[in-house]
Amino acid sequence: MAEQIIAALEKIVGANQVLRGDRAKPYLTEWRRAFQPVALAVVRPGNTGEVAALVQSCADFDCAVVAQSGNTGLVGGSAASDARRHVIVNLERMDRVREIDADNATMTVEAGCTLADAQQAAADAGLYFPLTLASRDRCRIGGNLATNAGGLNVVRYGNTRDLVLGLEVVLADGRVWHNLSGLRKDNSGFDLNDLFVGSEGALGVVTAAVFKLYDPVVQQVTALFALDAPEQAVALQRRLIAASGHNLTGCELMSRQAVSLACTHIEGCHEPFEVDHDWYLLVDLASSAQGHWLHEVMAQVVEHARRDGLLSDVVIAHDDERAAALWHLRESLPPAQVAEGASIKHDISLPISKLPMFLARALPAVREALPGVRPCPFGHVGDGNLHFNLSKPAGADDETFLAQSETAHTVVHDIVAEMGGSIAAEHGIGRLKVEALSRYKQPVERDMMRAIKAALDPDNRLNPGVIVD
Amino acid sequence: MAEQIIAALEKIVGANQVLRGDRAKPYLTEWRRAFQPVALAVVRPGNTGEVAALVQSCADFDCAVVAQSGNTGLVGGSAASDARRHVIVNLERMDRVREIDADNATMTVEAGCTLADAQQAAADAGLYFPLTLASRDRCRIGGNLATNAGGLNVVRYGNTRDLVLGLEVVLADGRVWHNLSGLRKDNSGFDLNDLFVGSEGALGVVTAAVFKLYDPVVQQVTALFALDAPEQAVALQRRLIAASGHNLTGCELMSRQAVSLACTHIEGCHEPFEVDHDWYLLVDLASSAQGHWLHEVMAQVVEHARRDGLLSDVVIAHDDERAAALWHLRESLPPAQVAEGASIKHDISLPISKLPMFLARALPAVREALPGVRPCPFGHVGDGNLHFNLSKPAGADDETFLAQSETAHTVVHDIVAEMGGSIAAEHGIGRLKVEALSRYKQPVERDMMRAIKAALDPDNRLNPGVIVD
Repeated sequence: MAEQIIAALEKIVGANQVLRGDRAKPYLTEWRRAFQPVALAVVRPGNTGEVAALVQSCADFDCAVVAQSGNTGLVGGSAASDARRHVIVNLERMDRVREIDADNATMTVEAGCTLADAQQAAADAGLYFPLTLASRDRCRIGGNLATNAGGLNVVRYGNTRDLVLGLEVVLADGRVWHNLSGLRKDNSGFDLNDLFVGSEGALGVVTAAVFKLYDPVVQQVTALFALDAPEQAVALQRRLIAASGHNLTGCELMSRQAVSLACTHIEGCHEPFEVDHDWYLLVDLASSAQGHWLHEVMAQVVEHARRDGLLSDVVIAHDDERAAALWHLRESLPPAQVAEGASIKHDISLPISKLPMFLARALPAVREALPGVRPCPFGHVGDGNLHFNLSKPAGADDETFLAQSETAHTVVHDIVAEMGGSIAAEHGIGRLKVEALSRYKQPVERDMMRAIKAALDPDNRLNPGVIVD
Repeated sequence: MAEQIIAALEKIVGANQVLRGDRAKPYLTEWRRAFQPVALAVVRPGNTGEVAALVQSCADFDCAVVAQSGNTGLVGGSAASDARRHVIVNLERMDRVREIDADNATMTVEAGCTLADAQQAAADAGLYFPLTLASRDRCRIGGNLATNAGGLNVVRYGNTRDLVLGLEVVLADGRVWHNLSGLRKDNSGFDLNDLFVGSEGALGVVTAAVFKLYDPVVQQVTALFALDAPEQAVALQRRLIAASGHNLTGCELMSRQAVSLACTHIEGCHEPFEVDHDWYLLVDLASSAQGHWLHEVMAQVVEHARRDGLLSDVVIAHDDERAAALWHLRESLPPAQVAEGASIKHDISLPISKLPMFLARALPAVREALPGVRPCPFGHVGDGNLHFNLSKPAGADDETFLAQSETAHTVVHDIVAEMGGSIAAEHGIGRLKVEALSRYKQPVERDMMRAIKAALDPDNRLNPGVIVD
């Protein structure tokens, strides 16, 4: 049977694009090591017609399609799990920027294009694609769409979904939905675009998208605030947004512990102030409008914040080099945690206003539940999103610490759920959080998700196992 | 049977809130006179629990629920059509602003609140709710959500959907989905919020929403450009967006004919230039950032546009009074068309870049199909949305002209569809455009919409007859 299926797949894409054994291995590696993916084959189609034929063919053979692009996800979203029935359809060969419409300020990109290449194509046309993630050189547009990727610019430009104007999608029955016109207003029926974005390959295989583009930044000012308490970060983000005319483009909270690890482990990271502070807030103001008024805005916000006791100290970067050094500190937090050994991670969100209360509850709770634990919270405070990561006690054994993961998750997620937050802010559910989702999601919402899954994929052939059981 | 149903409804909301006969009439009036709505009763619940009980009770009696709030829609979305089985559930008593969370910059509003009251509540809290429509004093939030309302600010702040962070919805089975936490990032499953927004009451009854808020405008500059051709408007909107840092908040194209009618019929409207021009572009730049740099931006864009032959003339409003006069001209276009007699309307959108080509094709096409017709196109060029309205030939009989509506619709919509546009940009489908939708929408997309409708409302009890048959 397997050979029959392989032959059918090879007939569609050519023998060279159906990978098994060693050639399939890179696509079956899950880099957080939470899963050991297996699949019948990895197939690499070259165009939308081939994707449609593959989906159809898999249906004929009672196989499921696991769509994949850059395979950089954090929740096992493309971790196929059935060596006989799962076919990974990897879209990396579909990597073209199909069109840039400068007057419409839009870009049509295939799912296999890397985020970095998409950004570059926009820049080459004198425009700006604001989605940006640390993995920009390896992650691909299809995965960005599948997970509604967030990243560093969300406070100003929104999540991936906010940038999408239309999609091209291969449906479960092998038909193709073409919706790449690039309309900014369209109320001709239910909103299907937004439903597919963030659906992690469970409702359709997205093969291309039209994105909104913005304009290149021509003035920017970066500052690092030293704070006593997260309440100050909440107040500062609000003031910065208001005073800058919604030009706060980055807004990252960093805890003392997270910064310490970066300064210990990562080259080029230095303590930003002479004395230590409990919290730091890294912010960017940026605009495509000519002028230097953002510097004046920053100066005024700083002056008023000092007067109102909202900061302990501040560094304003007056050149690109200094700004890059501050951002290097922020970008070093995740690798520094890796260098320090095991950590237990949470990707949570709350209303921005409730973050201080969350931290006031969650920090003592995890310290009580996991004695000696070193919480390293950091993240996108302007979006209400924290990476509430917990490093193991100094010198502790990795395995012993990680054995407490479920305990930690329960403590943290219970508080998040009680406060109305999300246990999956920007990384998605994938296969990693299916059980957690079933615990924390209202039954009425899970029922709706199941009904929609059944409506668009009645035979459960698209990425079975993600989001809904 | 009817009396039994009425008794059940009265038991839920009280006899005084179940309206029939003369008391029901205002809710059964469709102000464009395209429909003569009928219903068993109009029921006015006071809270979400009552809405849920009503939906449940209607199901028990095999009745359908037609949700209504301000009843100002333009496509018959709440035009109930069955005197025995349709119950209008009007939400105007649920008119509270439940909460404003200033640090989160969000507002929770019930579906029966008028748009004007919602705007005022935000302003009272020192914030800004950017959704704005000409009908702001009468339209209500529920209808704004149901139609994903657009309006004058979309070019900067997006459609209603872009402002929504969460909903409270009564589902077809009478259960309530509570999702009013106000999260800016949440990837815990399929995107249900955006699906309900714009679904015109066909998937659930939205009882409340959390909206993003922005900051009050503190600098603004208004200008009116006189143009020879729509291509100039496209180029100008792009330059204004880029140069202002995405602070173009209004961008309205007006045709010569539309302006003429306003100056003829509406008090306070005057020809803006000494000689007539074929096209006019009214723009606002506005920001909540202190300063006067938007004036400099406007001056520079004007200077470069002159140099590049992108304008014939321009008026820059240097005070609020002059700006108000320019906007009065724009807001007078719809009433002026009414004053001139019958007109045939189209609410279409295209990629901004394709608007000139559309006009180049559609204007001669309608003139050929309807000899003597006077096209009065105007609209939100910054969103690619035109109200391509056709006034009757001078002195023609209203009825005779309106008898040609289908001919006109076919001519216009065929061109729109061929160019990849939408026949329902901002007013929705309602009952008015169901047939047109079935003609122009891809079968694959209609099938998805039907499947989703069946998934969430399997017995077709929610606003039957809108969007999908």
